[in-house]
Amino acid sequence: MKLPAPARVGIVGAGQLGRMLALAGIPLGLHCVFLDRGLDAPGAEVAPILVGDLQDPRLLAELASKSDVLTFDWENVPAPALAALGGDVLIRPAPAALEASQDRLREKALFSRLKIPVTPHAAIDSREDLDRALRRLGLPGVLKTRRLGYDGKGQFVIRRAGDVDPACAALGCTDLIYEKFQAFSLEVSIIGARAPSGECVYYPLSANTHADGILHYCIAPYRNASLERQARRYLRRVMEALDYVGVLAIEFFVVGGKLLANEMAPRVHNSGHWTIEGCVTSQFENHLRAICGLPLGSTRALGAAAMINFLGTMPDRGRLLQIDGLAYHDYGKSPRPGRKLGHCTILGARARDRDSALKMALKLISRT
Amino acid sequence: MKLPAPARVGIVGAGQLGRMLALAGIPLGLHCVFLDRGLDAPGAEVAPILVGDLQDPRLLAELASKSDVLTFDWENVPAPALAALGGDVLIRPAPAALEASQDRLREKALFSRLKIPVTPHAAIDSREDLDRALRRLGLPGVLKTRRLGYDGKGQFVIRRAGDVDPACAALGCTDLIYEKFQAFSLEVSIIGARAPSGECVYYPLSANTHADGILHYCIAPYRNASLERQARRYLRRVMEALDYVGVLAIEFFVVGGKLLANEMAPRVHNSGHWTIEGCVTSQFENHLRAICGLPLGSTRALGAAAMINFLGTMPDRGRLLQIDGLAYHDYGKSPRPGRKLGHCTILGARARDRDSALKMALKLISRT
Repeated sequence: MKLPAPARVGIVGAGQLGRMLALAGIPLGLHCVFLDRGLDAPGAEVAPILVGDLQDPRLLAELASKSDVLTFDWENVPAPALAALGGDVLIRPAPAALEASQDRLREKALFSRLKIPVTPHAAIDSREDLDRALRRLGLPGVLKTRRLGYDGKGQFVIRRAGDVDPACAALGCTDLIYEKFQAFSLEVSIIGARAPSGECVYYPLSANTHADGILHYCIAPYRNASLERQARRYLRRVMEALDYVGVLAIEFFVVGGKLLANEMAPRVHNSGHWTIEGCVTSQFENHLRAICGLPLGSTRALGAAAMINFLGTMPDRGRLLQIDGLAYHDYGKSPRPGRKLGHCTILGARARDRDSALKMALKLISRT
Repeated sequence: MKLPAPARVGIVGAGQLGRMLALAGIPLGLHCVFLDRGLDAPGAEVAPILVGDLQDPRLLAELASKSDVLTFDWENVPAPALAALGGDVLIRPAPAALEASQDRLREKALFSRLKIPVTPHAAIDSREDLDRALRRLGLPGVLKTRRLGYDGKGQFVIRRAGDVDPACAALGCTDLIYEKFQAFSLEVSIIGARAPSGECVYYPLSANTHADGILHYCIAPYRNASLERQARRYLRRVMEALDYVGVLAIEFFVVGGKLLANEMAPRVHNSGHWTIEGCVTSQFENHLRAICGLPLGSTRALGAAAMINFLGTMPDRGRLLQIDGLAYHDYGKSPRPGRKLGHCTILGARARDRDSALKMALKLISRT
């Protein structure tokens, strides 16, 4: 007997990623329900929400009881909390995939095991470890917490000997990782989706520009056949090793024409927001299709796209909407310095149109 | 002083059109609220709703109090009910534009006044009127109610003398219109949007195929430069005559290479659903942009699109989603014979891809 496809999707975390997942689910006839800390979470405007801690076993169980499949806007739910749910609900991606990405050191070990090149790094659990790593790998580099870092948080750049003490003081000197600074020509990311059947689809590469550790803008598709082949191969290796179901993203540094894996995200990813307007099927829809066992959709690009994050303040909407081919995304969040409040995607038939519109948009945004 | 753009949109009617409007408004940072008869209305899943009669003066006033601008998923709200709201809320399109389309006879008079060709027709307020009209215009033809007809409802085809009595019995013999049957080669529609500033944008033509009086599928863009020019000219005339704000649709018969206006809709239109995936800016977003005084978005087509309505029953979602470039839209309605429950849009890079996918989709849908 063929089982009906899951129709109720529980999403742990109701940030902008969850909100855009729920919006993608509505036309598909899927019903999302969230778990997050407050009624002011971006997702709460578009689907029902359970309010409380994202690791609360009682609330996770309640979310599971309202869902055919559980998924994540926030990947740091501890595996034991999920294991406690038993087999009553599908969890996609599986807890093991989340665990692999919750710890930078384990993540790098996974990449290395799969013969995916990574930046030189060392585990730091004491001041002695750090001194040894600095001698071995040299300066400059970045000291990072192994867990719960994102958007440049939980990171400290060590440029000279005098930075070592403040770095240790800021992050503590245990459960850290030291990564040698990588002189790279470019950062790119690849996003793909894997179905329970093992079928995979891949989006075109995105070239990403960061500012202060936070993604600022993306250009996609970034056309480079050789890098694209490498990236797909690496992404496939990770997805297969984890028997992954859903959307997975890997960020890479491009060093001497080769990819070095920086980090992965077992979820939809900021560098894939352009796929909403820029591809036949968005990353959000393909994540839902994958976790619900529906056929994956085409990842074909419809044109040349650029995505710009709105950080800290929202720009003048009326001025931005004057730009031809610009799609505006307001997450409904209250402003706070550096916070991701929204984004826009510019879609041009040709890269030239996109580039001039991108320039105009960046100018307008910096002015507000 | 520059006034802030309206942010709260009250929508009279929470059908699938309202639902898709609200979905388009969320990323723009707009907050929609509905008025409709039941909590099971399609829009209620995506935005708050006031429940009650769509003409209830108290509820209309409450909707207005929660809105910066009022608009319509259902255009048959009587003008006096809207006039009673006074000037406290913007109403877009204006009540006069709704009135013009609420009555088939007034609509045809407007078209004629604007030198837009229409089918031969006659006002019917008695059996004598009908006999006279049949003598003057001949058979076959359609007897229609002047008000509140849609999707083939309130219509009676008169093919022979024996049909006259049943037609009169079914529709009454007053407040009707008799239209001579038009032998047409094609039905097309044009959709455009007009801003408060008078700026207009136009979508490419759609070629529409009906079954039993209900739209079955659309092919767009329908490329015919001469018809496109005529259609734009006619649409512009109507929008300017009504000082229209928002999206307006006109359906035409193509007779001997010329357009004859069939009817208009002062709202987003079923034949424009393909614009969600098929154009840079959808009809839903452009309606909201127009009524909120935001810049209108590009109507450029991204490829060759086809839209198929799901009537009466929903098809097998899993099978349809296997079709490359197919986007699925479930309105969340309960099944009923002939009811519009959802639609799908097929987007191909080339018309050839679209046409073969359309064929496959039609076959799959007819099987379920």
